[in-house]
Amino acid sequence: MRVMALIECIPNVSEGRRTDLIESIAAAIRAVSGVRLLDYSCDPSHNRSVFTLVGDRAPLKQAVLALFERAIEGIDLRRHSGEHPRLGAVDVVPFVPIEGITMDACVALANEVAQDVAARFDLPIYLYEEASSNPARKNLEDIRRGEFEGLATKMRTEGWLPDFGPQHPHPSAGASVIGARMPLIAYNINLDTDRLDVAKKIAAGIRHSSGGFRYVKAAGFKLDDRGIVQVSMNLTNFEKTPIFRVFETVKREAARYGVRVLESEIVGLVPSGALVSAAEFYLQLERFGSEQILENKLKGD
Amino acid sequence: MRVMALIECIPNVSEGRRTDLIESIAAAIRAVSGVRLLDYSCDPSHNRSVFTLVGDRAPLKQAVLALFERAIEGIDLRRHSGEHPRLGAVDVVPFVPIEGITMDACVALANEVAQDVAARFDLPIYLYEEASSNPARKNLEDIRRGEFEGLATKMRTEGWLPDFGPQHPHPSAGASVIGARMPLIAYNINLDTDRLDVAKKIAAGIRHSSGGFRYVKAAGFKLDDRGIVQVSMNLTNFEKTPIFRVFETVKREAARYGVRVLESEIVGLVPSGALVSAAEFYLQLERFGSEQILENKLKGD
Repeated sequence: MRVMALIECIPNVSEGRRTDLIESIAAAIRAVSGVRLLDYSCDPSHNRSVFTLVGDRAPLKQAVLALFERAIEGIDLRRHSGEHPRLGAVDVVPFVPIEGITMDACVALANEVAQDVAARFDLPIYLYEEASSNPARKNLEDIRRGEFEGLATKMRTEGWLPDFGPQHPHPSAGASVIGARMPLIAYNINLDTDRLDVAKKIAAGIRHSSGGFRYVKAAGFKLDDRGIVQVSMNLTNFEKTPIFRVFETVKREAARYGVRVLESEIVGLVPSGALVSAAEFYLQLERFGSEQILENKLKGD
Repeated sequence: MRVMALIECIPNVSEGRRTDLIESIAAAIRAVSGVRLLDYSCDPSHNRSVFTLVGDRAPLKQAVLALFERAIEGIDLRRHSGEHPRLGAVDVVPFVPIEGITMDACVALANEVAQDVAARFDLPIYLYEEASSNPARKNLEDIRRGEFEGLATKMRTEGWLPDFGPQHPHPSAGASVIGARMPLIAYNINLDTDRLDVAKKIAAGIRHSSGGFRYVKAAGFKLDDRGIVQVSMNLTNFEKTPIFRVFETVKREAARYGVRVLESEIVGLVPSGALVSAAEFYLQLERFGSEQILENKLKGD
């Protein structure tokens, strides 16, 4: 039985317009044996690209270093503008445990990569999310506040020395944020009403920032073309705040306004465990283990 | 992206006591490259062994032929007794589509293997389940009725000529049943009562044989040690008769007697699709496709 760790890594790079540079970064990733580039996309208005790669520790590290090399070489944030906030040429690099690896091991990998990148490119690195050792520096938004332009000042403020690297910004590449987190699930629940206030009140009730579930970010939106409203969410840790609990809470809160749930949707990818736990909940499954899932049994070699 | 079909094959062999023979069959399967022997177990009181192997068509066929060779060489049904009904030395061989393969292709494979086995070992073969072309010979129980001892007489009865091979039993190996079917799910629902009549009435209501769901076999049992009763089921096609529909029906029928569902349980393996469809149902998921499951995205290559 071959035991290989599978880690997802989603580097965000501050270039979304020059396709030659983006392609050269993709090529550098693809050249690393043991890494698969699942997807990459660039957003010209954000002036930002997102790469999704998977692999085991050693090849992922090699691919991330190659990505840093190309990005730092090719991007100068002093001449960069776009709608998306950014702190560095390589803005943020999360490692996500998928299979055969613990969160602790991903945190260790994030630390290792951070240390190597800092040393090799003389670049300040902040650790975030699960890799952060400082509660005030856990959220990406807090670390990125002030952006590249405010970085030199921020680094001189108490509590904002980087975790690795020099105590001043890299002149053209700023600083990077590296860390480990659970897979995100983009999850929306559509309500059979056009009352935006209902969606907004429910979103406020369930999101962490205003007293709701710890691993939920939420906002209320109107879907104008359909005449309905949506509670739009990011579930940041589906093991600790599972989909079914969020769904049932939204359903109950909506009922308080006489509103029904029309449907829900998952945007993009979802780990199968997030759906299996919903099946376990609703079917009241006891004595069930993930080793009973046929596909898991068939994996391994 | 490598496209490989994954088929499960679960040969049942009429020997559950002589471990040397069982081990030699296991060794013959393991010797085929491209086949994995996931599991095998023997039951001495049934005098029967069950092997679970997976692979693509060509290696599976090779492994099944090797299994037939050892079993026919080593087993003489004239001197075989056990609690489990049996027709042949190799009693039944189902092929189950798991991934990257249709049921039709598994039916074709069953036909091919049946033809080869019949020719090579001069053994009569009956096709069953999805591979059967005759509604009266679809169920294993119907084909096996009369067992090895009644086989010669049965084969002379109208409608019981085999699909392949000679028109008389093999002297020591009888006949074999080969076919294709969906994965079985062994699923139980435990009720918070000691009233066996309630479990029996619910089982009768949901099982196909007495008017219930097409792909459900069910019976009511007492769990004496816990003082409760169980509706014990086999779901024979989870795509057409999904778990959630069975669960909700049992729950509703139990409520009619004032009885609550305590829990449910899956015994053994379950394809992830069976659980994902339950999550889709209860979460009212729309616009969801299996390609959104992270693990599916990570497979391939």
